Amino acid sequence: MSDVSSSLRVNGGRLWSRLMEMAKVGATSAGGCNRQALSELDMQGRALLKGWAEAAGCEARIDAIGNLFLRRAGKNPQLPVVMTGSHLDTQPTGGKFDGVYGVLAGLEVIESLNDRGIITDHPLELAVWCNEEGSRFPMAMMGSAVWAGRLKLDEAHGIKDRLGVSVRDELSRWKFPLADDTPRAAVKASLEAHIEQGPVLEQRGKRIGVVTGVQHMCRYEVTLTGQEAHAGPTPMHLRKDPVRVLAEVLPVMYGAAKSLGEDARFTVGFIETKPGSPNTVPGLLKFTVDIRHPDAGRYQALKQKLFDTVSAAIAKHQVKGGASLMWEAPGVSFDSACVSAVREATESLGFDKEEMVSGAGHDSCNVCAVVPTAMIFVPCLGGLSHNEAESASPEDLSAGADVLLRALYKLASA
Amino acid sequence: MSDVSSSLRVNGGRLWSRLMEMAKVGATSAGGCNRQALSELDMQGRALLKGWAEAAGCEARIDAIGNLFLRRAGKNPQLPVVMTGSHLDTQPTGGKFDGVYGVLAGLEVIESLNDRGIITDHPLELAVWCNEEGSRFPMAMMGSAVWAGRLKLDEAHGIKDRLGVSVRDELSRWKFPLADDTPRAAVKASLEAHIEQGPVLEQRGKRIGVVTGVQHMCRYEVTLTGQEAHAGPTPMHLRKDPVRVLAEVLPVMYGAAKSLGEDARFTVGFIETKPGSPNTVPGLLKFTVDIRHPDAGRYQALKQKLFDTVSAAIAKHQVKGGASLMWEAPGVSFDSACVSAVREATESLGFDKEEMVSGAGHDSCNVCAVVPTAMIFVPCLGGLSHNEAESASPEDLSAGADVLLRALYKLASA
Repeated sequence: MSDVSSSLRVNGGRLWSRLMEMAKVGATSAGGCNRQALSELDMQGRALLKGWAEAAGCEARIDAIGNLFLRRAGKNPQLPVVMTGSHLDTQPTGGKFDGVYGVLAGLEVIESLNDRGIITDHPLELAVWCNEEGSRFPMAMMGSAVWAGRLKLDEAHGIKDRLGVSVRDELSRWKFPLADDTPRAAVKASLEAHIEQGPVLEQRGKRIGVVTGVQHMCRYEVTLTGQEAHAGPTPMHLRKDPVRVLAEVLPVMYGAAKSLGEDARFTVGFIETKPGSPNTVPGLLKFTVDIRHPDAGRYQALKQKLFDTVSAAIAKHQVKGGASLMWEAPGVSFDSACVSAVREATESLGFDKEEMVSGAGHDSCNVCAVVPTAMIFVPCLGGLSHNEAESASPEDLSAGADVLLRALYKLASA
Repeated sequence: MSDVSSSLRVNGGRLWSRLMEMAKVGATSAGGCNRQALSELDMQGRALLKGWAEAAGCEARIDAIGNLFLRRAGKNPQLPVVMTGSHLDTQPTGGKFDGVYGVLAGLEVIESLNDRGIITDHPLELAVWCNEEGSRFPMAMMGSAVWAGRLKLDEAHGIKDRLGVSVRDELSRWKFPLADDTPRAAVKASLEAHIEQGPVLEQRGKRIGVVTGVQHMCRYEVTLTGQEAHAGPTPMHLRKDPVRVLAEVLPVMYGAAKSLGEDARFTVGFIETKPGSPNTVPGLLKFTVDIRHPDAGRYQALKQKLFDTVSAAIAKHQVKGGASLMWEAPGVSFDSACVSAVREATESLGFDKEEMVSGAGHDSCNVCAVVPTAMIFVPCLGGLSHNEAESASPEDLSAGADVLLRALYKLASA
């Protein structure tokens, strides 16, 4: 690290007060935020940010899917930008930090550079990705997907909310451009700061998560049809009891997850029996399976184990049905140079760190398809997120922004 | 068997037409019956039966809980009666045979003896127990429980239906006696014919079930509280996942049921997770466990195994809660002389038979507390009962009545 960068720190108090100011836009009575994508409140949040960023010397631009970019000039306008950012939209009962932190940490980096009168070689660009949550318009990480060329603009424009209002309708209402006439700017690298949304950093007493990638993840629905029967007179061997399949799947899958290392995830979040009477063998059983692993081979092994176990158990217990793949998001490995920049910045600041993969999806999953990318995690209270009680400490949030500042400074140096 | 009894047979056609006639009282459009206890329709059914029985020379009596007794005199009025019967009330979506068959088979026995001019030494008494189903007034086998001294008359009188109408109100409406001023008549023995309500006889191709007792049975509710967590970022070993308890309980209990013989029953009829989101580790899991076994020791072993497995799994997986016993009905062993009478009658008729225990409760569970008792089962289609599609063949129903006739004749001989 250069002498300059080794003294760089953000203004944590300013970051915290901006977070609290933004949290008023769409504030809920339970202390959370409801600021859904492309709503009136989303526009208020964007306007608040834009005011701050323009006062800090940034130039605003909106693309054809409603992503907002705020550019701070570099010494050499010919160099590709170095990007940071996240999202301002929230879940209907979301918190104050998910997404917002990554945007305001990026702004804080720009303001801290301003404070020191530092101009980076590369331009810096703060991205606010449109509709990351996918809770109003059902397509999570929509804006970054279009930007990265993973989702067609027309398709994204056509997505409708529950009231039948399309993304196109809302973009028009806010007088945003609908034509895709600007090619994507060249980007050297991208970093995203985010709360962890899990308990690992807190449990291990670490301040910074150096995020090396995002897990592979998928969701199955298992539907099994047996035969209703009276729990008293019907002998076990004459039953067609779908719960017997669950009895085989659960221990095998928990065992497989354990054998595939501590990054493996196996979750059964939903189980339902019908008719649901205590003295009737269920005729129908439904349950969901969420499988995740950062390693492609081990991820496939978990999926295969589920398929094999369900298939064998169905045949053995004479029930019908099986496991259907409802949704899948392939995992990503972040760029090693970007990860190194985050690691070295963390070390230079003396923060305890954990190298980790993200369990949840982020805009960076799309960005990294076209640009060298990494992420920075900070702890959140109890691992809680997508929840009005979401919380993080000013110290941790400031530390994450410090890491972002030093890593961006390095990446933006020619 | 005497020469007389070895030629005794019922009139199966008459039995069938009486069953179909009774099925018109409260007939449902789906082919079943809705004739709930102490309702107007129950009274119509009782009146129809009483007319037939009085025409057959029986004398009617109603006790203080609404049980109807129809007595056919014997040669010696000093001898205790030999009893048979069941119930005429049905589930709201009940069938044509559950209970009704036992009552009308008893009537058919009396009429067949009349046809032959046979008077038994002991009087015969046909019992119609009040509110066996417990679907309107929530106390199954109510009338027989009061008769056997297992339920206090006052308590039974106070039971109310969902509209707030009490048993006492209905007994008064029908001008039934409310005072318990007649001591229970001396009874030598009691037999009850019933459809099996399970698939065993049909599956094994047997016509008669010689019922040697009723299983012990109980119901648990298992409630487990863990901690909601995101399915992605939360490592397996940091979770408090109540589904892990289910993963241990299910295979252990299915295995225990298998190891305790084919009479063991283990049923999980109801399972629910909360919040029930596919990508959230559930914070709450509820499931029911129904355990049954005819052998007291093995029944206790199953209950103990559930308790031990749940306790160990809760501690291991750091969740809270446990298994609560919601309901229990101790099993019964029927009287060996009565069982022998049924067995010998079946053999004398040349019917294929199965010695079995009842998986469901019946009025005979109460009767046998004070009187030597046994039961006779006949097959029902697909084991289906408590269902408008309940069905049984005229041949099987006639065969069961034949067995009842010969066994009662023997028991009623001095």
